[in-house]
Amino acid sequence: MQKWRATRRLLLNSYSSKSLFHHPRSNPISDHSTTISRSSSGFESWTSRIHYRHFATAMIQRNPAFSTLNSDDINYFKGILGEKNVIEDEDALLFANTDWMRKYKGSSKLLLQPRTTQEVSEVLKYCNSRRLAVVPQGGNTGLVGGSVPVFDEVIINVGSMKQVISFDKVSGVLVCEAGCILENLVSFLDNQGFIMPLDLGAKGSCQIGGNVSTNAGGLRLVRYGSLHGTVLGIEAVLANGDVLDMLGTLRKDNTGYDLKHLFIGSEGSLGIVTKVSILTPPKLSSVNVAFLACKDYSSCQKLLFEARRRLGEILSAFEFLDNESLNLALNHLEGVRNPLPPSMHNFYVLIETTGSDESYDKEKLEAFLLRSMEGGLISDGVIAQDINQASSFWNIREGVPEALMKAGAVYKYDLSLPVEKMYNLVEEMRTKLGNSAKVIGYGHLGDGNLHLNISTPQYDDAILAQIEPFVYEWTSKQRGSISAEHGLGLMKANKIFYSKSHETVQLMASIKKLMDPNGILNPYKVLPHSIISYS
Amino acid sequence: MQKWRATRRLLLNSYSSKSLFHHPRSNPISDHSTTISRSSSGFESWTSRIHYRHFATAMIQRNPAFSTLNSDDINYFKGILGEKNVIEDEDALLFANTDWMRKYKGSSKLLLQPRTTQEVSEVLKYCNSRRLAVVPQGGNTGLVGGSVPVFDEVIINVGSMKQVISFDKVSGVLVCEAGCILENLVSFLDNQGFIMPLDLGAKGSCQIGGNVSTNAGGLRLVRYGSLHGTVLGIEAVLANGDVLDMLGTLRKDNTGYDLKHLFIGSEGSLGIVTKVSILTPPKLSSVNVAFLACKDYSSCQKLLFEARRRLGEILSAFEFLDNESLNLALNHLEGVRNPLPPSMHNFYVLIETTGSDESYDKEKLEAFLLRSMEGGLISDGVIAQDINQASSFWNIREGVPEALMKAGAVYKYDLSLPVEKMYNLVEEMRTKLGNSAKVIGYGHLGDGNLHLNISTPQYDDAILAQIEPFVYEWTSKQRGSISAEHGLGLMKANKIFYSKSHETVQLMASIKKLMDPNGILNPYKVLPHSIISYS
Repeated sequence: MQKWRATRRLLLNSYSSKSLFHHPRSNPISDHSTTISRSSSGFESWTSRIHYRHFATAMIQRNPAFSTLNSDDINYFKGILGEKNVIEDEDALLFANTDWMRKYKGSSKLLLQPRTTQEVSEVLKYCNSRRLAVVPQGGNTGLVGGSVPVFDEVIINVGSMKQVISFDKVSGVLVCEAGCILENLVSFLDNQGFIMPLDLGAKGSCQIGGNVSTNAGGLRLVRYGSLHGTVLGIEAVLANGDVLDMLGTLRKDNTGYDLKHLFIGSEGSLGIVTKVSILTPPKLSSVNVAFLACKDYSSCQKLLFEARRRLGEILSAFEFLDNESLNLALNHLEGVRNPLPPSMHNFYVLIETTGSDESYDKEKLEAFLLRSMEGGLISDGVIAQDINQASSFWNIREGVPEALMKAGAVYKYDLSLPVEKMYNLVEEMRTKLGNSAKVIGYGHLGDGNLHLNISTPQYDDAILAQIEPFVYEWTSKQRGSISAEHGLGLMKANKIFYSKSHETVQLMASIKKLMDPNGILNPYKVLPHSIISYS
Repeated sequence: MQKWRATRRLLLNSYSSKSLFHHPRSNPISDHSTTISRSSSGFESWTSRIHYRHFATAMIQRNPAFSTLNSDDINYFKGILGEKNVIEDEDALLFANTDWMRKYKGSSKLLLQPRTTQEVSEVLKYCNSRRLAVVPQGGNTGLVGGSVPVFDEVIINVGSMKQVISFDKVSGVLVCEAGCILENLVSFLDNQGFIMPLDLGAKGSCQIGGNVSTNAGGLRLVRYGSLHGTVLGIEAVLANGDVLDMLGTLRKDNTGYDLKHLFIGSEGSLGIVTKVSILTPPKLSSVNVAFLACKDYSSCQKLLFEARRRLGEILSAFEFLDNESLNLALNHLEGVRNPLPPSMHNFYVLIETTGSDESYDKEKLEAFLLRSMEGGLISDGVIAQDINQASSFWNIREGVPEALMKAGAVYKYDLSLPVEKMYNLVEEMRTKLGNSAKVIGYGHLGDGNLHLNISTPQYDDAILAQIEPFVYEWTSKQRGSISAEHGLGLMKANKIFYSKSHETVQLMASIKKLMDPNGILNPYKVLPHSIISYS
């Protein structure tokens, strides 16, 4: 979870947290929060501080086999979708052509907004026959350039398909259209006494279809697992317009190959997801959050090991950030304060528990924390006494990406690594870069997911050359993943071999060719350009 | 979980359980248990009571494109594997040619036992070039004829590949060879303080590679989810001998299409799984089991709804059986007794909780059960006071498949259905069959998985004609699955359209053709014969 939470989960308030050490609290958190959302009217002002880069077209050539949009095409689409769902407006297109980080910008002249699966099917069938390339776009909150056009691809956004189709309270299975915004599903389920099994910073903007297509990870993965486990079914439209109805609502179904998994995480390159069926857990009443300091990385690891065992079934998040991450959040974000006294610690850990019994869960967490303090794993710590404090702890962790954006240029890496090796990379990178950059490490320790970020006043190719391919090579040596949860998109399509074998990538390419022979779906993304021919 | 537990988890002992109603206990369970395991020396005596049927060759023709094994082939295999791993012994072949239910019997003349991935690769490469069909076989515990040859296919068993490669105590990730027997992995992990996320009746014989290839479900799915969520990586050998190294140990890895899912549940028809990486949960110390009676099916459903909410994070199993299932177990199994007084109840539910605090978990379960009794959802019930009682409750539920086998002929259906509709099928079937058969229903209510079984003194085509296609059509109308966890194998390959759309099956067939162009891997299974040409 490295995406900015478009609508904050909870507001910050002043509070008095319960210290594990009973020292006098300092740094009260101020009583306000910014609520930033991305709307189609454009970027909020703070995003203008982002250093703008346009990577795309410098790297690759437009596939000459693709047609160029003409007025007949546009008329055809208007015939299918109606005038108002065929968008040629410049402002809307500027927004849809540009990614959230403003690193990538396409030059599409057309945004289509189908309202039904049938319309998606008709649009794709036509695009396929005409060899018009398309980009499926959800909330456009991705970080690897996967959701915007590279050149003039037609943008298809299913945001108008936003109905909840059914919800079964006995099984907890939700079926909905792909354009539902994650936060709206969260609200819907909250009324039913359930929660979504995934939670992302971008939930105010991102769509469930995009979440599924990118196999979004996020904050609850440590408890509820990945979408490969919780998504029970999907409906998807193939490049040729064929509709695959795999919209099962069953937890168990061993009838043939489970093809839905091909669409989970393939970033819209094999089909457009139009409906989703997902298993949702019951909402449990008791949530506790602790913010802890550890003297070294080894203590964080040991704490994780102990937490899995002693908090067991109630552990719902185990996040970490280093001191540099915390300082960045404190220096660049309003309303974020360190709940611990300002003595220097090297690492901070946020532990969340979720269970069904308030007093028992809290007792259990307190016992665990006291034991961990006595064992020297924790140097200091506080437990949130109410939802506002809990929220303020989360805002430190979740505020880091925003703080990074405000601090200047940022080189972002989303890596899966063996937990015991993870922080070595941050330290090696620091040694390598010296004073020329700030290197910070934070992320989902419970999932082995490091967000390595390198912050500099401005982008500098000399710095980049010191980071890459070093980071990828280092990760590859540890059999890590160069994209834990963000996907490959355009940014890392050519980097896939750092994490996947040649034979495996070759099979991916064969499946792409089988399912999308003209290559019209999200071209130039995911698979390496060397293996997919654009001619 | 409908497979006989080859090695019982725990032995039965006499006990005194804690009644929710404090009535005097009756029917003490005797202090012994049978331990039945399937060994390569042949079937245990009780299996001889099974009514033998040989379905296979009557239904389909051998694919004439396949070669017939000759002495050159055998010499070639001996050159790769060594003499002793190329098995031509008649007894061993009889065992490997026959499925556990004795419903299916092939006529293979050769069983190969490779010891390394490289050997599997060389064997498959040769078979592919020679068009020799092969059957990947694990513990041969399947129930749909998927693991035995239909004709003369070469049997490949990776049972000699049984090393644990690594185990990481921080992340809980186990990496092992595919031939590891599930129960051996359970024992290995027990010493490390971890458990396998799946538990099957067949665990004493089944192999993890077979579990992955068939997407085995089992008793812990309600808590830990399916193998699509817990398997982190696999190594698989394709039909042409190419080795796909997808043996990641990472919880999160979004680098390209997640192809391992193609192999999970494809029953060896796309490749042979040679290594597995799996996320294992920590072993939690507190396990509680309750055996409950409910007056009607509606109460079972409501109890499930309440259990999800009130037991929340500690719920680890929710199984049900009807009165007919219980009577069958009581009448046909030694050492199985009803822990409740002999008054007539219509339904029984087994609830298990697993957590990290003995006293708290028990308190919570008791409070939940008392509340449910007061609300009229439970008519009677007992909580196990020790591990022996817990085991004896489990043995009732797990003994039903064995009791069915002892009772005579049995028509077995493994269905996923919406929970609220599930038992209607049992009732409709009873009405349809009248006195000609016993219809019983039991299964994993928490997963929506019904095991519908029809028991008759002997097999009778007139009875079968009343059951099929009625059961499949009924299931299809409810958008259920005609195979929740057993797979399609040979038995249901032609039934796939009851649960999958034509377009989806067509894509499965295209992927099969892409990955195994000569169709040598587990032919005649999984996909319908109408769509796979055997010529």
